[in-house]
Amino acid sequence: MKKAGIIGATGYAGVELVRLLLSHPDVEIGAISSVSFEGKSISEIYPNLLDILDTALLTEQEVIDRCDIIFAAVPHGLSQELARKCKTGGKLFIDLGADFRLYEEADYKQWYKGEYVYPELHREAVYALPELYEEKIASAKVIGNPGCYPTTVALGLAPMLKKKAIDPDTIIIDSKSGVTGAGRGLTQNTHYPDCNEAFSPYKIAEHRHTPEIEQTLSDLYGEKVTVTFVPHLLPVNRGIESTIYAKLVENFSIEEILESYKAFYKDKKFVRILPRGQIANIKNVRCSNYCDISLHLDARTRRLIVVSCIDNMVKGAAGQAIQNMNIAMGFAQDAGLCLIPPAF
Amino acid sequence: MKKAGIIGATGYAGVELVRLLLSHPDVEIGAISSVSFEGKSISEIYPNLLDILDTALLTEQEVIDRCDIIFAAVPHGLSQELARKCKTGGKLFIDLGADFRLYEEADYKQWYKGEYVYPELHREAVYALPELYEEKIASAKVIGNPGCYPTTVALGLAPMLKKKAIDPDTIIIDSKSGVTGAGRGLTQNTHYPDCNEAFSPYKIAEHRHTPEIEQTLSDLYGEKVTVTFVPHLLPVNRGIESTIYAKLVENFSIEEILESYKAFYKDKKFVRILPRGQIANIKNVRCSNYCDISLHLDARTRRLIVVSCIDNMVKGAAGQAIQNMNIAMGFAQDAGLCLIPPAF
Amino acid sequence: MKKAGIIGATGYAGVELVRLLLSHPDVEIGAISSVSFEGKSISEIYPNLLDILDTALLTEQEVIDRCDIIFAAVPHGLSQELARKCKTGGKLFIDLGADFRLYEEADYKQWYKGEYVYPELHREAVYALPELYEEKIASAKVIGNPGCYPTTVALGLAPMLKKKAIDPDTIIIDSKSGVTGAGRGLTQNTHYPDCNEAFSPYKIAEHRHTPEIEQTLSDLYGEKVTVTFVPHLLPVNRGIESTIYAKLVENFSIEEILESYKAFYKDKKFVRILPRGQIANIKNVRCSNYCDISLHLDARTRRLIVVSCIDNMVKGAAGQAIQNMNIAMGFAQDAGLCLIPPAF
Amino acid sequence: MKKAGIIGATGYAGVELVRLLLSHPDVEIGAISSVSFEGKSISEIYPNLLDILDTALLTEQEVIDRCDIIFAAVPHGLSQELARKCKTGGKLFIDLGADFRLYEEADYKQWYKGEYVYPELHREAVYALPELYEEKIASAKVIGNPGCYPTTVALGLAPMLKKKAIDPDTIIIDSKSGVTGAGRGLTQNTHYPDCNEAFSPYKIAEHRHTPEIEQTLSDLYGEKVTVTFVPHLLPVNRGIESTIYAKLVENFSIEEILESYKAFYKDKKFVRILPRGQIANIKNVRCSNYCDISLHLDARTRRLIVVSCIDNMVKGAAGQAIQNMNIAMGFAQDAGLCLIPPAF
Repeated sequence: MKKAGIIGATGYAGVELVRLLLSHPDVEIGAISSVSFEGKSISEIYPNLLDILDTALLTEQEVIDRCDIIFAAVPHGLSQELARKCKTGGKLFIDLGADFRLYEEADYKQWYKGEYVYPELHREAVYALPELYEEKIASAKVIGNPGCYPTTVALGLAPMLKKKAIDPDTIIIDSKSGVTGAGRGLTQNTHYPDCNEAFSPYKIAEHRHTPEIEQTLSDLYGEKVTVTFVPHLLPVNRGIESTIYAKLVENFSIEEILESYKAFYKDKKFVRILPRGQIANIKNVRCSNYCDISLHLDARTRRLIVVSCIDNMVKGAAGQAIQNMNIAMGFAQDAGLCLIPPAF
Repeated sequence: MKKAGIIGATGYAGVELVRLLLSHPDVEIGAISSVSFEGKSISEIYPNLLDILDTALLTEQEVIDRCDIIFAAVPHGLSQELARKCKTGGKLFIDLGADFRLYEEADYKQWYKGEYVYPELHREAVYALPELYEEKIASAKVIGNPGCYPTTVALGLAPMLKKKAIDPDTIIIDSKSGVTGAGRGLTQNTHYPDCNEAFSPYKIAEHRHTPEIEQTLSDLYGEKVTVTFVPHLLPVNRGIESTIYAKLVENFSIEEILESYKAFYKDKKFVRILPRGQIANIKNVRCSNYCDISLHLDARTRRLIVVSCIDNMVKGAAGQAIQNMNIAMGFAQDAGLCLIPPAF
Repeated sequence: MKKAGIIGATGYAGVELVRLLLSHPDVEIGAISSVSFEGKSISEIYPNLLDILDTALLTEQEVIDRCDIIFAAVPHGLSQELARKCKTGGKLFIDLGADFRLYEEADYKQWYKGEYVYPELHREAVYALPELYEEKIASAKVIGNPGCYPTTVALGLAPMLKKKAIDPDTIIIDSKSGVTGAGRGLTQNTHYPDCNEAFSPYKIAEHRHTPEIEQTLSDLYGEKVTVTFVPHLLPVNRGIESTIYAKLVENFSIEEILESYKAFYKDKKFVRILPRGQIANIKNVRCSNYCDISLHLDARTRRLIVVSCIDNMVKGAAGQAIQNMNIAMGFAQDAGLCLIPPAF
Repeated sequence: MKKAGIIGATGYAGVELVRLLLSHPDVEIGAISSVSFEGKSISEIYPNLLDILDTALLTEQEVIDRCDIIFAAVPHGLSQELARKCKTGGKLFIDLGADFRLYEEADYKQWYKGEYVYPELHREAVYALPELYEEKIASAKVIGNPGCYPTTVALGLAPMLKKKAIDPDTIIIDSKSGVTGAGRGLTQNTHYPDCNEAFSPYKIAEHRHTPEIEQTLSDLYGEKVTVTFVPHLLPVNRGIESTIYAKLVENFSIEEILESYKAFYKDKKFVRILPRGQIANIKNVRCSNYCDISLHLDARTRRLIVVSCIDNMVKGAAGQAIQNMNIAMGFAQDAGLCLIPPAF
C-alpha cells in the first residue's frame, strides 16, 4: 500500500479526496493537513467521518514527509512551493488548484495575478485530463488536475474539434454549477436564504476557467480557439451541467455525430455517451466519476448542442485526481473509482 | 367594480390569477371554474385560500355568464370556442394559453397540431406583450397572453433588434425555468426526488415557445429571425432566467448599450434595467410583475450577453394577463400589480 | 400619513418590514438605518427593491428624529437606549428583538446575560401578542414584539390552557424553522451546502425563546408552566411549524376541541383553525400574517396534538410588528396586512 | 458468489438494493423484476445505471428460479406468496415490506387490513433489526426487514428501555422523513412545487409504523408500551430524523446515559453514539448504513431527548436488508456496507 497525503483536507475537494481514498485498494491515507484546523481531528470538522477517520490534522510538512503521493487542495499560488518540495523528495504531486493548469505564464499572470516561481516545474508539469492526455500523465511527477468547468467542456467538444467538425468561432458555453463549487468558505451568495430559490449567472465572460478551456480546445483543434463562457450558480449541492453550442461545418446527421463520440471514447470508462433522444442530467452522475454527454442537433440552425454533466467534486476534482494518480502510479485506472451514482 | 372570471382556476396560472385579482382595486372575482374540481370550494384544493376565498368552482358557462372579463387558463385547443362565446357576449377575453399567440395558422399546426377554427377571431386577436404592443392591446377584445419564455426573450432583445444592433443569425437562448412552469399535473420529471438536486435541459431546440419567440423577434427586426432555444428545468418553484447570446454588429460600448435599453424602456414600469456590473437574478423578481434585465459584453468575442429574469407565474402568466386587462379596460396599467418582490 | 422608521433595516426582519410598510395605507417610510451599510442605498444591498425604494441608509438618530413610529430590529441589548429616546420624544417604539419580551429581569439575565437599564421602561412595556393582549397594546408606547417560536406556541395552546383542558406538565414542543430565522449573518450552519439536504435540532432544551414561551403559557394557565422546547433547522427559506403535544385532562372529543378553538379565535382574523382532518402546513401561510392551527387527537394515549404554522418573517416578526403598530395607532388591525399566501 | 435477486427492482428501495449489491463482495445480482417495466432494461428507467447494469427486468418467477437469495420490495400483501415459494425452494427470503414485521395477525389486520395466509411462515419469520436480534437472524429463512421510522426509534430507545430507565408512558416520537420515503409513485404531496418550501406532519398518530414501533419497544421493556408517533414530510431526498422524548425514572447524568448507550452498542459498527454536545444530523449518515444517535437532557423537566438519524433508503431499507442477508448467510456483517457518508 502506498501512502497518500492530502494538504488542505478540510476544504470541499480535500474532504472528498479523503472519503474516496479511504476506499482505495492500493493506497492508504498517510497524513492530512489543514491550516485552519491544525491539531483537531478531521471528524470534529466533518462529523460524517466519525469512527471512520478520527486522525488529527497535521502540518503540510508532515504530510510531505510521511507520504509517497501528495494531493494539494489549496488556494492558487500556494502549490508551487509544495510541488518543488515533493519533486525534490521524489514524491508524486497532484495539484487540485490552478497553479499547474496553464501552459503559458502570461495566462496565469492575466487571470490569476501570480507568477511562475519555478519555470522548470511548469515545463515538466502535465495538464492531466485523463481521457485526452493519458500517456503524458503516465510518466508525470507534477500533475495539474483540471478545473471542473473545463472538464465538462473539453470532454464535450473533443471529438468534434479533433475532426474539425465545428466552427470554433461559434462556441458558446452556458454552464451551471452546484454550490459546492464555490467552496466551504462563507459568502453572502452561498448563504442559504440567498442561494435557495435563486438563480443567476456570475463572472459573465470573465471566469478564470476561460483560459484553461481555451487552452485545451485550441490544443484539440490545432489553432487558437476563443470562446464565450458564462457560468451560473445552481441551487443544488453537487453537479455541473454545461450546455455547449457550436455551428457544424458540414451536414452531419445525429447518428454520425453519436458514432464519432462513441468511437472517440471507446475505451474511456468514465465517459458515457447517452443513447439518442436521452438528455444528460447531473442527477445521474452524482457521487460518481462519470461524465455523461448527450448530443443534439438544432436542424433549423445547423447548430450542434452538447450537454455535458459531471459531479464537480468527483470527476471535477477529487475523483479525477485519483484517476490521475492511478495512471501515474500504474494502478488500475478505475481503482477506488467504481462509484455507482445513486438514483436519488 | 367589473367582474372577472377565471376558467381553469385550479391550474397554477389560474390560482395565481385568483390570488392577484383578490387585491385588484377595480375588479372583483365574479366566478371561477374547474373541470377537475367542479362543485368543490377552491380553498379545499388550495388551503392557502382558506377564509379568503371559499367559493365553489362552477362551470365554464357560468363563468362566462356572470363576468365582464374572462381569463382562460386551459390546455391549448380549448380556448377558441371560449373566445367565440365571449366575443359574441361582448366580454373581454384573455387567453393564457397558446391558442391566440401565433399569427400564422401554419405555425400553430406545426407546433401544436391544431387548427384555427374561427379565422376571423385570430385576425382580430392581439398578441399582448404590453411593453411592445400597448396600443393594439388598448382596443383588443381577444387577447393572447404571451408565453413565459418568450416574455424574457422579447423584452431582453427588443432594444437591440429594433435598432439592428445585433446579428439575428447568432442569437442563442439558454433558458431555465422553475418547476411551476411545468404545471400542476403530476409527472415523473416533477416528482420531488427526481427533480430535487437535479438539472437538465429538455425539449432541446424543439420547445413550442420557439415560433412565438421568433415571431416577436422577427417583428422587431423587420425580417425573419431564426433562433436556437434550449430550456432547462430548474429546481426552484418560481422564476425564469434566460441567458441570451448574440453578436454585436457594431463596436458599441456597454455604456451605450445600457443607455439604449434605458431609453427604450423609459416609461415601462415593469422592466428594470440593472446598473452596470449587477446581474439579474430570479430571486429579485419573485412574486412580482418585474422583468429584470442586465447587460454584459464579452469583449473578447464581441458578443452581447443579456440576462433576463421574470417570475414565470406573474410577468410570465397571471400578472401579465392582469396588465393586459388593465390596458384593455382603461385601468391604471399597474393596478393590482404593485407587488414588491420579497428579499428571500 | 404617519412616518415610520426602521432601525436595522438591512437585517431580515428589517427588510421585511420595509417591504410590508411600503404598501401600508396609513404610514410611509420616513427613514431607515443600518450600522453595516450606512450611506448606501438599501437597493444596493437588496436589489429586489431597485426602483421601488432607493433611499439611503441613515443613522439611528436620524431615524428617531424623522419618524413618529420607530421599529427596531437590532441584536438584543441595543434596544433599551433606543426605547428611552423614543419614549422621551413621544414616539411609539416597537422592538422586534428580545429586550422587552420578558417581564422578569432575572429571566433576561439568565437567558440573555444582560440587564434592565431602565426598569420603569420595562414595567411600562407591553408584550404584544395581539390575539391575546390587544387591549394593553392599544395604549402602549413601548412594545415588545413576540419571538417567532413563541407566537406559534402561545396561539396553539391558548384556548386549552385558558380552560385548563391540558396538563401543563406534559407539554412538549417540537418546532422547525426555516433558515431566515437564523438571520442574514453568515454561519457554517447556514452555508448552502451544509444546510441543504440536511436536518437537525439545535439548542436542544436551551433555546432563548423558552422563558418567553413559558411566560405566556403561565399567564394563560394562571400557574407556572415549564415546557420542553426543541427547535430544528428546516431547509426552507420561510416558515415555522410547531408540533405541540399535551395530555388532555378530560375526555374531550375532537369536535369539542375544534369548537373551543373556533370560539376563542372568533374575531381574530389572522388565526385560521383548519377544518377537521386537514393539517397545517407552512406552505399555506407563506408571505402572510396568518397563523394556521390544526388540532388532532391521539385517541390511544389521550394526547392532544396541535400543529401551528406561521411565516417566521411575517406573523413571526415584521407582520406582527405592523399589527401591533396598527392597534397602538388606532389603524385598522389588518391595515397593510391583507396578504394572501401564494399557492406555491 | 451467491446469486441475489430483487423483486420490485424499480421502486426506490429496489433500485437502492441494486446499487448496493453491485458492489457486494460475496454476492452477484442474478435477476431483477418489475411488474411495471417488465422487459425493459433497468438503465432505461434509471439512467444512473447506464453502462453499469443494463440487464432486462424479468418476472418474479424468473427471479426466484435463478437466485439463492430473494429480496422483495413490493406493496404489502404481495410478499406472503413469494415467501412461501422461496421457503419451498430453499431460498433465503428477505421482505422489505410490512408483511413479516408484526408478530400478531391482529395488528396486521387492524393497521394493514390484510391477513396472514400462511401462519406457519409468520411463526418462523424473524423481525430483523440486526443490532437487537442478530442471533435469531443468523438462522432465519424468512426475514421481515424493519420499517424506516421504527429503526430510528428502536435503536434510539433500546438501551434506556432495556434497563427500564425511562417511563414508557411518556414516550413521544416526532419524526421527519425525506421524500424518497413516500416512494416513486406520483402524488400531489410529492409534486415538486407542492413539496418544496413546504413542511407538515401527516398521518398524525395513525401511521402504520406505530404497531411495529410498539412491538419492539414492548419487547425491550418487557411490558406493553404505547407511544405517540407523528411523522412529518421533510423537503430533502434522503434521511429520517426522530426526536424522541421520554421522562427519566431516575436522576441519571448525561455522562451515565452516554456510557450506557456506548456499552449497549459496543460491538455494533453501524450505530454511532455522538460525543457529548454534538447533535445528530441526517446529513452525516446520508448514503450510508449508519444510525447516528445523540443524547440530551432537559434538566428542567427531567426529560431525556434522543436524536436518532438514518438514511431511510440504506439503514432504513436496502442497507439493513443487506446487513440481514450478511448475517443469515454468514458473510461479514458489513460486507458491501462500508459506505462512507459524503460530507455534502
